[in-house]
Amino acid sequence: MASSFCTKSALSFSTKHENISTSFLIRDFRVRFPKSRSFSSPARLELNATKLRVSASSATPVMDQPPSETTSTAPTIVEVDLGNRSYPIYIGSGLLNQPDLLQRHVHGKKVLVVTNTTIAPLYLDKTIRALTDGNSNVTVESVILPDGEKYKNMETLMKVFDKAIETRMDRRCTFVALGGGVIGDMCGYAAAAYLRGVNFIQIPTTVMAQVDSSVGGKTGINHPLGKNMIGAFYQPQCVLIDTDTLNTLPDRELASGLAEVIKYGLIRDADFFEWQEKNLPALLARDPSAFAYAIKRSCENKAEVVSQDEKESGLRATLNLGHTFGHAIETGFGYGQWLHGEAVAAGTVMAVDMSYRLGWIEDSLVKRVHRILKQAKLPTAPPETMTVEMFKSVMAVDKKVADGLLRLILLKGPLGSCVFTGDYDRKALDETLRAFCKS
Amino acid sequence: MASSFCTKSALSFSTKHENISTSFLIRDFRVRFPKSRSFSSPARLELNATKLRVSASSATPVMDQPPSETTSTAPTIVEVDLGNRSYPIYIGSGLLNQPDLLQRHVHGKKVLVVTNTTIAPLYLDKTIRALTDGNSNVTVESVILPDGEKYKNMETLMKVFDKAIETRMDRRCTFVALGGGVIGDMCGYAAAAYLRGVNFIQIPTTVMAQVDSSVGGKTGINHPLGKNMIGAFYQPQCVLIDTDTLNTLPDRELASGLAEVIKYGLIRDADFFEWQEKNLPALLARDPSAFAYAIKRSCENKAEVVSQDEKESGLRATLNLGHTFGHAIETGFGYGQWLHGEAVAAGTVMAVDMSYRLGWIEDSLVKRVHRILKQAKLPTAPPETMTVEMFKSVMAVDKKVADGLLRLILLKGPLGSCVFTGDYDRKALDETLRAFCKS
Repeated sequence: MASSFCTKSALSFSTKHENISTSFLIRDFRVRFPKSRSFSSPARLELNATKLRVSASSATPVMDQPPSETTSTAPTIVEVDLGNRSYPIYIGSGLLNQPDLLQRHVHGKKVLVVTNTTIAPLYLDKTIRALTDGNSNVTVESVILPDGEKYKNMETLMKVFDKAIETRMDRRCTFVALGGGVIGDMCGYAAAAYLRGVNFIQIPTTVMAQVDSSVGGKTGINHPLGKNMIGAFYQPQCVLIDTDTLNTLPDRELASGLAEVIKYGLIRDADFFEWQEKNLPALLARDPSAFAYAIKRSCENKAEVVSQDEKESGLRATLNLGHTFGHAIETGFGYGQWLHGEAVAAGTVMAVDMSYRLGWIEDSLVKRVHRILKQAKLPTAPPETMTVEMFKSVMAVDKKVADGLLRLILLKGPLGSCVFTGDYDRKALDETLRAFCKS
Repeated sequence: MASSFCTKSALSFSTKHENISTSFLIRDFRVRFPKSRSFSSPARLELNATKLRVSASSATPVMDQPPSETTSTAPTIVEVDLGNRSYPIYIGSGLLNQPDLLQRHVHGKKVLVVTNTTIAPLYLDKTIRALTDGNSNVTVESVILPDGEKYKNMETLMKVFDKAIETRMDRRCTFVALGGGVIGDMCGYAAAAYLRGVNFIQIPTTVMAQVDSSVGGKTGINHPLGKNMIGAFYQPQCVLIDTDTLNTLPDRELASGLAEVIKYGLIRDADFFEWQEKNLPALLARDPSAFAYAIKRSCENKAEVVSQDEKESGLRATLNLGHTFGHAIETGFGYGQWLHGEAVAAGTVMAVDMSYRLGWIEDSLVKRVHRILKQAKLPTAPPETMTVEMFKSVMAVDKKVADGLLRLILLKGPLGSCVFTGDYDRKALDETLRAFCKS
């Protein structure tokens, strides 16, 4: 059996949030695995990050024992460490049935749930119950937006403001994003802007949102000429990931999210990439344990990067592997034609191709990237209608352009290593674009 | 001759901005005046805050000597102290003729000037020259918006984003707000949101913007149902106040700005209010020295409050004396019908009336407020078409409502004292509304 061990564990008495003043939070922040380990015992791995509740008068709990039956539904917690803007990510099955988790992060008397036409029939009632059960002080309103990336714009955003004002949401209110990445980005940005900033909570219901977009505070909307051009860095009070919501996720959406999971492996976590290569069948079969692990490990990677570089002055940009090419596909091909993760997958192949042309990575890595993306049923090339010119014109307004120079995230060195740089041979970029476009 | 004295002076070697690494900045942060002093010698007063340049190798400069001829156009500097987001407010005549002042705050190669149809013919060329003279590295673009509060909305804001993307403004670009409060609020919010935040500079050209709205980082736009409902706290790199721009300001706009000057006296600076009572004729006659002093003293008051409470958790709200009633007038009566300061003046009279009804201030103070506002040619009552219901419906969505309770800024105690509170007799509010509305 593979072993796992903590590199840092913490026993802390939390005073940050109301209603948990009599609980200890026990968690570790980082789990390391021997390079060769295979995915065989996720339940055992979960132990290190399981949140155990013990009374404040209890003696120091023993961390080496496996979790008892009564703690089996307790959430795994990954902390995003950002000083006074730190927050927990709760991960687990059935978390929407645990009202305490959400309610401890709602401080005012009014809540606005922002969701879409697909998710509302599935989880809106459940979310409202989680916010109100045993808490009659809170009034919950909701706004249901049309579903899809093509609605991630100013017009749709205004519907959130309209509803917030009509229902008299005040400065102490909380916005709750219930849905995928589009809902999270729009609700988060609405929260950042409404009355110059109100609290918000992320309840991501897609793999994409659970492993990436709900964590780290990037919020915003698209402009017809560029993706995510208007927005804010704005952190939530907490992220609540109920892995049961994946049961209703279409296969295509699930695969889209895997593109970001694969990204973490490629840019900074070789062990995780190797784990994915072995366990992709389990993920595609929606094995709950495999998913719980993939989500946790992805969130840990994201939290670590965001904690070090919240506003993307450098390191954080590496999370955008494949995204510059991918955003060009989404913008040029039309928002919503391809899912975000599909565009990122094709973009990752292009970034990897360019890295190889520059002589920065081995041929074997190119092949492994192709293989895992194909296995995940993700595209490995852009849509046929994309031209070199379309790529160039969208990439020219990419957020990573500085003083006219386009900086890219490229792999360099062994698996798990990348660079964020504007210092590359322009010829390699041209060759990559020509290799993937018919004109 | 009246005397003035420093309570704190600072000699600091600035390393924050490029291009001034060989200069010392010498300034004081607070000037106090004997209670009874009249405005008679502004040139003398300026001395304390004059910025003197001395070489880095110089000995400690002597502060007691009057400024020499060569420093007569040097700006007065008021510092807004916000840790790593601190910035200077430059105040003086002819500052747009000193390219160095602006250029030291522009770090990238692209600048977008946001202005309006009124200000562009007057000061856009001058501003572009100030940004580019001796600095061929910088490209300046501009976007000219329609003039007026009724255009402070999402539709106009989108024009700024359109232009920014079309002209390929990148993350290192700088937005420059050239105009009054509406331009400053919109440009600032555009800068906060564009690519999740780019640098910006305020060049306010109205009294309103120079004494209040350009300082402190409140940015935003109106919603049809409420003023400034969408926005961000976002600080500029600097505020450059060229007092010569007031030469082209219409009388009505000038008076509007005085409403905010008077506000500072009422809420926290009794000496300043008394100075205003004596010097209002000089201000109305546009005496440059009187204005330089009024602007500086207003900025000092604003900077002090903002430094203590940037995000308006308490103290900063006191700067909104008269604004809750005033915003109701602006929203209910129609954006742009009355100037902001006109609405604030009427709102101030209403807040003062209510404070008196609560027994919190003397009758004599009510009379003094009426007298100074009338002298400044500002309204002392809301428009006749405003009803009690109109006030109540707009005030219900005011940003200062918390958990259903409307908090107000009211005067309490001697001149210069106020409170921000939800703890008042609702009857007094009703009586005030009925006293000022026909129905």
